[in-house]
This record gives sequence, C-alpha cells and structure tokens, in this order.
Amino acid sequence: MEQFVYGVDVGGTGTKIGLFNGKGFLKDTVVLETRTENKGVYILQDIKAAIFENMQKHGITPQQVKGVGVGVPGPVLGDGTVLKCVNLGWDVFNVAKQLQLITGLNVKAGNDANVAALGEVYRGGGQGFSNIVMITLGTGIGGGIIINGKIFEGATGSAGEIGHIMVNDEENELCSCGRRGCFEQYCSATGVVKLMKKYLLTHPDDSELRKLPKYTAKEIYDAAKNGDAPAIEVTKKVGEIMGITLAKIATVVNPDAFVIGGGMAKAGQIIIDSLLPSFKANVFHAAKSTEFKLATLGNLAGIYGAAKMIFDE
Amino acid sequence: MEQFVYGVDVGGTGTKIGLFNGKGFLKDTVVLETRTENKGVYILQDIKAAIFENMQKHGITPQQVKGVGVGVPGPVLGDGTVLKCVNLGWDVFNVAKQLQLITGLNVKAGNDANVAALGEVYRGGGQGFSNIVMITLGTGIGGGIIINGKIFEGATGSAGEIGHIMVNDEENELCSCGRRGCFEQYCSATGVVKLMKKYLLTHPDDSELRKLPKYTAKEIYDAAKNGDAPAIEVTKKVGEIMGITLAKIATVVNPDAFVIGGGMAKAGQIIIDSLLPSFKANVFHAAKSTEFKLATLGNLAGIYGAAKMIFDE
Repeated sequence: MEQFVYGVDVGGTGTKIGLFNGKGFLKDTVVLETRTENKGVYILQDIKAAIFENMQKHGITPQQVKGVGVGVPGPVLGDGTVLKCVNLGWDVFNVAKQLQLITGLNVKAGNDANVAALGEVYRGGGQGFSNIVMITLGTGIGGGIIINGKIFEGATGSAGEIGHIMVNDEENELCSCGRRGCFEQYCSATGVVKLMKKYLLTHPDDSELRKLPKYTAKEIYDAAKNGDAPAIEVTKKVGEIMGITLAKIATVVNPDAFVIGGGMAKAGQIIIDSLLPSFKANVFHAAKSTEFKLATLGNLAGIYGAAKMIFDE
Repeated sequence: MEQFVYGVDVGGTGTKIGLFNGKGFLKDTVVLETRTENKGVYILQDIKAAIFENMQKHGITPQQVKGVGVGVPGPVLGDGTVLKCVNLGWDVFNVAKQLQLITGLNVKAGNDANVAALGEVYRGGGQGFSNIVMITLGTGIGGGIIINGKIFEGATGSAGEIGHIMVNDEENELCSCGRRGCFEQYCSATGVVKLMKKYLLTHPDDSELRKLPKYTAKEIYDAAKNGDAPAIEVTKKVGEIMGITLAKIATVVNPDAFVIGGGMAKAGQIIIDSLLPSFKANVFHAAKSTEFKLATLGNLAGIYGAAKMIFDE
C-alpha cells in the first residue's frame, strides 16, 4: 500500500499544503486563504477540508496517510502545544492533538521557522549537514536550529529566535518585540531598507536608488553589485553587524553551517560575502570553518520540513 | 554480577578518577598528577595503571566494568577524537579508542566543560532539567550545552565556548584566544579581579579590598555583600555584562536553565542576583522565564559527568 504525507505551512495570510509520496517527492500543492477571524477558529477546519478534498482527488485513503506535519507562526513545544500565535488569533492549545482529533490522522506540529530549517536540511541548502542554524531574512529575521537532524525547540519553543538578539543598546526605535536594538532592526529586509533611507537622507552622494520611489533590500544589494557607492556602504555595514552576530551564535552553538533564506537572500552570494570578514574576525577559532549556504527551497521549505517531521517519526 | 563505572577528569595539573557503582553512587576517588611532559604520552598509561590498581583494591574484574568515561580539557568530537589539548601536550588523536586499546575497557570521551555540565544535570544544580547551558567562572569562562539530557558537542567540538563571545569591540588587551573583548576578559574570576584593580586605581573611594595584598573574585563579591561601595560598583558592572551576554545565549538556545559553577560561583546567590536585571531587560520575552541555578558538585562535576556518559550508553 503506497504511503503519503501531507506537509502544511500555516501563514498569517495564506496556508500551503503539500502532498508528498512515501519517497518524499512533492506530488501536489494546495494554497488556501488563512481565515484569522473569530480567533482563528476556522483554520484547522479549512486545512482538514482541503486535505480530505486532495485525498479524494488522488484516491488516497486515510490508511495511506502516514501523517500530517504542520508549521505554525508561533512558539510550539515538542508535544504540539502552541504558546500563542498572534498572527492567527490563536491562544495556547495543542494544535497537533486538535487537528488529529478532527481529521483522525496522525499529526505533528512545529514552529514555522524551525520547520523551514528542517526542510532546508531535508531537501534544500542544508543537505548533508546535521547541525545547522537557519536564518530567514524577511520583514523580520526568523531562525531555526537543527541538532542531530532534528528541530531543537528549546525550553519554551523559542530556540533560534535570533532576530531578537540585542545588538545595539543605544537604539531609540522600538522593535516589534517591544525592546530596542534587536538584530532584525538592522539586518532584516525591512531593516536594510531603513538603514539605506537614513544613509541617503544624511549623505549627499549620488545613488541609482534615489531615482526609485521605493526599493527592496534585494534591490539595494543589486545596486551594490552594480557599484552604487551608497548601497555598497550600507550593505557593508549590514554585513558587519550580521557577521559579528553570527560569530556569537557560532561561538555558542558551533553548527556545521548557517543556511540563509528569506526574500532578501535572493540577492545571493553577496549576502554571505559581505558578512564573512566580520564573522571570521569575531568567531572563536574552533568555529572558524562554519560553512555558509543559501537556502534553495524558497517558500516551499515549510511544507518540506513539515512533511519531514512525519517521515522522521 | 555487580557493575561499576569509572569517571575520569583529566586536568592540566591533576587527574581525578571516580569509582561509581551501578546505581551511580561514588564509592572511591583517586587523584594523580597529570604528567604533561613528552607531549603528554604518559597520561593514558597513568590512568590505566590507576584504574587497574583501584579495581584490584576493590576486587573488581574487567567484566564488571561497564566502561570508563573521560573528560579532557580540549575540543572532543562525538567519536572521541581530541582536536588538540594544548594544556596536555596532545595533538589530534582518538583518546577514547586509544584508552580502550590499552585497557581493554569500554571508553567514552568528552570535553571537560561539557562533561561537567552533564555531571551537574545528573547529580548537581541542573537536576530535573534536560536542556541547560552550564557556565564555569574560573581563570577563564568554560561552558557546556546539554540538549535532551545529552552533551551537544557542535560541529567541531566547541559548542558552548561562551567565554569567547565578543562583548566589547573597543578592548585593547588580548584574550588568551588571540582576539580582543571576549566575555571571559570581564566576567571570569580573573576578569573580575582585573576590573576591581582598575577601579581602585582610578577611584579614590575607601574600600576594604585596599588593605589586602591580593584578593580573589569571591572576596570581591563578599566585600560587596558587606556593603563595600567600590566592590558593589564593580560586581554590578560585571552582572550587567553577564546578564546581557546570557540574554543573547538564551534568545538563541532557549535553555530550561543556566547552571553557574566554578570558583567564583562560591560567592553564591549574589552572582545570580547581580545579572538578573540586565538579563530580564535584554532577553526575548519567550525566554524570560529561563531559570538560574548554582552548580553544587564543585570539582567533582567532571567525574560525575564522565561516569554519566557511560550510564547513558
């Protein structure tokens, strides 16, 4: 009897569902809107309906479903308990048990950033490594730690929250977490754009970015690659902060590799090249050989990792 | 047939050997000089001789020895390979295999700081926790990470080297690791004494420490407890640096608890009290409840942890 696994990635606006065969190949994907109204009470029902519809489409029986892995945007304990998901309207409850109850299927749940990290180790930029720290450079900075090939959740499900390492105790602006000077205030896609705007406001230099009404972090890196002096200045500064911060993490965690993903990482190798000098200068010698890889699965990392949680059972 | 385990803690000057019964109770200890001459070639032979003598003393046969756990002062990979031990004169080799070869006994090896962390989780201040970060405040700052009750070595055996997190990029003095501004330059026992001396040189205030020809970090904390204003100033500053640094570690690792040991920790609860305000102010909210415990096994943590590696097999 052929076996299948579903990998589900619940986001604040959309939910992605992947159907994987027993060998871990992605056979089909479904995308649905995440209905966050009424404290997110419809979300699991919608996932159930979509999975059952997809099973019917492919002629898959419940007995053929090895399980459903789910990644959610909030801290999740090892047993599947979600400790609040602000974006979804969820309070504390066991999402794995709840989805298992309404579907009759085997369910495992994890934090979305951790699950994406697992996905990258399974089929992405982290292949071949067993201990990685994944960094997702987006609106904020997400992170996930994989140890011995498995997600490390930490005591309260927040291991790998590297976006909120304090890197500047003189910052005046608030971070989304309520504190000041967090890593993501400078090195997330949002942070890089903010630094660039500040730079252009306070320096008279010519820059191709001045002609754009709006620009992304990736466009700033692209400008730097094209020799745009202010963009080079800002990406160098961002690389310095990133290198120092990742050096601290490597000194403590000593991973095989960092895997860097998220929208900003689409800029490519320049992200790694610009952080390496300050990384090397600030890391403990035994961790100097830590490798850096770009993530390769993009926004599919979540469903791959979610499925992998089931394959690993 | 009663089973026994030996736990060995190899230090730069002395080596401690503990005999444990099958229930993990320490029955006997042996201390020998660590002979580091000739690139440390005698060390394993001396350990073998001491273990065999102890077996004879207690009428223990090789069949009754479940194994020998060994902690050594250098990075050790999961398979027992030592990546240099400067203090012992050792180059790269598999210490577990080598000791197994010459004794005919089952051997496991680990880094001494990691092994001590395991010991504290087994029978010391970390009991009841499965994920801890141990911090040893001595001449330097050692560290060890226990994840799911097991030592986490990291990619190159240097996980938990928290003494070498860079905390001050304006430092002029060199750290023993060759870089500048490492955590242990300020918060190790040596670091605290240095900060105290600097303070007294640059401030005219009265202090009971001025009367002493020499003082230890513990004596500085004792003076602070007695209301000595300069000692209070310095221990407050040390607590600030410690709190910020442990907050960064907790934001990434999210352990159940930090366990604080080493000679300086004999000062007691004041160490924890003085770091808590800056820890709470700088940690990601989900890790705010991280607990702080004092180590309780002192210099026996190494042999307890070494034995535990064998019990865990």
